Amino acid sequence: MKILLVGAGGVGDAFAKIIVRRSFYELIVVSDYDLRRAERTVASISAKHGEDVSARFKAVQIDASDPERVAAVALEHGATHVMNAVEPKFVSSIFAGSLAAGADYVDMAMSMSKPHPTDPLAQTGVKLGDEQFAQAADWENTGRLALVGMGVEPGLSDVFARYASDHLFSEIDELGTRDGANLIVRDENGNEIFAPSFSIWTTIEECLNPPVIFERDRGWFTTAPFSEPEMFDFPEGIGPVECVNVEHEEVLLMPRWLEAKRVTFKYGLGEEFIGVLKTLHLLGLDSVEPVRVRAAAGSAMVAPRDVVAACLPDPASIGPRMTGKTCAGVWVTGLGLDGAPREVYLYHVSDNEWTMKEYDAQCVVWQTALNPVIALELLAGGEWGGVGVLGPEAFDAKPFLELMQAPEPAGYGQSWGFQDRLRG
Amino acid sequence: MKILLVGAGGVGDAFAKIIVRRSFYELIVVSDYDLRRAERTVASISAKHGEDVSARFKAVQIDASDPERVAAVALEHGATHVMNAVEPKFVSSIFAGSLAAGADYVDMAMSMSKPHPTDPLAQTGVKLGDEQFAQAADWENTGRLALVGMGVEPGLSDVFARYASDHLFSEIDELGTRDGANLIVRDENGNEIFAPSFSIWTTIEECLNPPVIFERDRGWFTTAPFSEPEMFDFPEGIGPVECVNVEHEEVLLMPRWLEAKRVTFKYGLGEEFIGVLKTLHLLGLDSVEPVRVRAAAGSAMVAPRDVVAACLPDPASIGPRMTGKTCAGVWVTGLGLDGAPREVYLYHVSDNEWTMKEYDAQCVVWQTALNPVIALELLAGGEWGGVGVLGPEAFDAKPFLELMQAPEPAGYGQSWGFQDRLRG
Repeated sequence: MKILLVGAGGVGDAFAKIIVRRSFYELIVVSDYDLRRAERTVASISAKHGEDVSARFKAVQIDASDPERVAAVALEHGATHVMNAVEPKFVSSIFAGSLAAGADYVDMAMSMSKPHPTDPLAQTGVKLGDEQFAQAADWENTGRLALVGMGVEPGLSDVFARYASDHLFSEIDELGTRDGANLIVRDENGNEIFAPSFSIWTTIEECLNPPVIFERDRGWFTTAPFSEPEMFDFPEGIGPVECVNVEHEEVLLMPRWLEAKRVTFKYGLGEEFIGVLKTLHLLGLDSVEPVRVRAAAGSAMVAPRDVVAACLPDPASIGPRMTGKTCAGVWVTGLGLDGAPREVYLYHVSDNEWTMKEYDAQCVVWQTALNPVIALELLAGGEWGGVGVLGPEAFDAKPFLELMQAPEPAGYGQSWGFQDRLRG
Repeated sequence: MKILLVGAGGVGDAFAKIIVRRSFYELIVVSDYDLRRAERTVASISAKHGEDVSARFKAVQIDASDPERVAAVALEHGATHVMNAVEPKFVSSIFAGSLAAGADYVDMAMSMSKPHPTDPLAQTGVKLGDEQFAQAADWENTGRLALVGMGVEPGLSDVFARYASDHLFSEIDELGTRDGANLIVRDENGNEIFAPSFSIWTTIEECLNPPVIFERDRGWFTTAPFSEPEMFDFPEGIGPVECVNVEHEEVLLMPRWLEAKRVTFKYGLGEEFIGVLKTLHLLGLDSVEPVRVRAAAGSAMVAPRDVVAACLPDPASIGPRMTGKTCAGVWVTGLGLDGAPREVYLYHVSDNEWTMKEYDAQCVVWQTALNPVIALELLAGGEWGGVGVLGPEAFDAKPFLELMQAPEPAGYGQSWGFQDRLRG
């Protein structure tokens, strides 16, 4: 297996730091628009693991917005797999470039949605991933696999859902992905600061788009942003966090392979973050349409959302100043195998102190990057396989969770949690 | 009297529209950095009042940041008075240019403050107006007058304070300027939108600087932004609005001429606006330090605060879509002339519907521009006079309030209100 990694930002860098400990591949080509970022990732691997290990890594420049360039780089290095680790706006071009190069493809976020033109808060328009699923036949016909939504959420959450469906429930009422954290970032003086642990650009996109919900009797539909707030009690000391509906891939993926009356995604944004997002929207600062602003040289056209991102600390840089844990999981309700009501929460917790010490990566990007590495190892070993455009729940969850949990060096030493909860 | 008006933005334009109805002067030179703006103001006067009237108005170009250029334009037109109607960052240069030209000077906001370098939330640094008062001797020695802070707040508020001190109280506990409104702006479809009625740039500056408070036993000191929130009940249907401490000129002006135990300024920002300002600060979007942002042509350096301003509607343009009233006034507590506890609120209300119909100006800028016109008429008639750097409270309030209240054409037909309130 030869992997072209597109993007050496927070998640791409963590992907490289995780996969370097494994041996199922021959080559990782670390590519970025900014060659120095790719080189920095390879240099950090070389410094930690020595040149023998880092010989399997190469740093190259790439333009992810250009499918031909993606295909050319993939072909040049004989990539068998393309791993997309950049912002979702580049999904289309990397997806097309991979197919053109005859490489399998993995991503962690799917092609973007467009709101319904006249009724955006009730009906779906172009849904997340629609563009990719529309091309499924091209992938099937060439015998290639596109494994989409294979990060932590979507990704591990979908694996958990498949596991619950196969092994824990005879009938499912709701597959509810629930994500919450108790992360705190401090400045040099120890004062708490506002510093999102994930790309603010992507967070704005997913939180301000109308959230999508699936119901078996209704199909997919949308609601107003931040709808149906609910306090969800997260495990391992994180505690209760206010969660709201957010547009997310799980809701589009799970119903394609799993039976459930309802599929939702709620994100534990917390009151402060919701307030910030609402204010950005109120002032038009979430917009990606450029506005004219006075600049050093007369004036410039800039997108307000890019300015917001430029004002905040780079999520990749905040690890050393962050404390706390993040939890990703799926809350499943329905009837157990015995036909009795059942409610479980399947989850994985990532502790920033541990990921920083072990991997020099902050916990949110590390947790995201872990899962595609495991999936690629299963694909390399033949435990997973398929053609077409497939989500994580299209594959057997058991080998994934076993490999994840097995101690190093055989597995990844990552235990996952299971709570049986009483229904309210 | 020949007046050089510097600035034909919202307030300057309203100043011209108000003064055109009066006859105490020979010439108004309307100047702006953008000559077209000055010409537009003169053209609108000509269209409404005819060419005979507008013959007393001239439009010229000026660079308000250059004291020599200000002096040259003043001398060229034989200006006896310079009226500063631009952003406070140009106070220094216009102030110097007026003195150099031997003209009297009027402004509506004073030279800017600088926070205390090490203890900004408790101690004052350079205070509002310090730079101007430091030059008082130059004005006294040349026999010229600089009347500073002569808008509505500061301005009319200071006139009210002088009136209360002279005619209503034997001893004053607090002179508390209180400003509140119930203005609403709608978009083309009638939906309420977020659109501040005054420059967001200036609003951020005054609201996020540490507010200053005066106490007789302590002198001037500062607090954290948005301190001491209080619900203040505004008259004429506006009702209760949450007010917080804000840095404002009244607190620096009133103690120089009036006796009071405490002087404060509170602005009825309301909960939503306070939330917006806090969020802008939290995210660093209030900053005037340029950040690098990707732009059409590679990247650009832009100040986040300029981007916020660019995303919002121009306050000068929202008048037609705005409804409601704004109220400026001073709440005074202490002992009445009879020695018994007394509490009064002296105020002036400006109704947007009326100012749009009568003056084609939105109510906030119109109310600001009204007061320097009245003051100039008093100076022209000799009812007011003096040399040096003086605030509005250095002059007798009675002729001002009488001229303001007298029906047109003798006066300005603007009644002001007076509420006797019980102390809580």
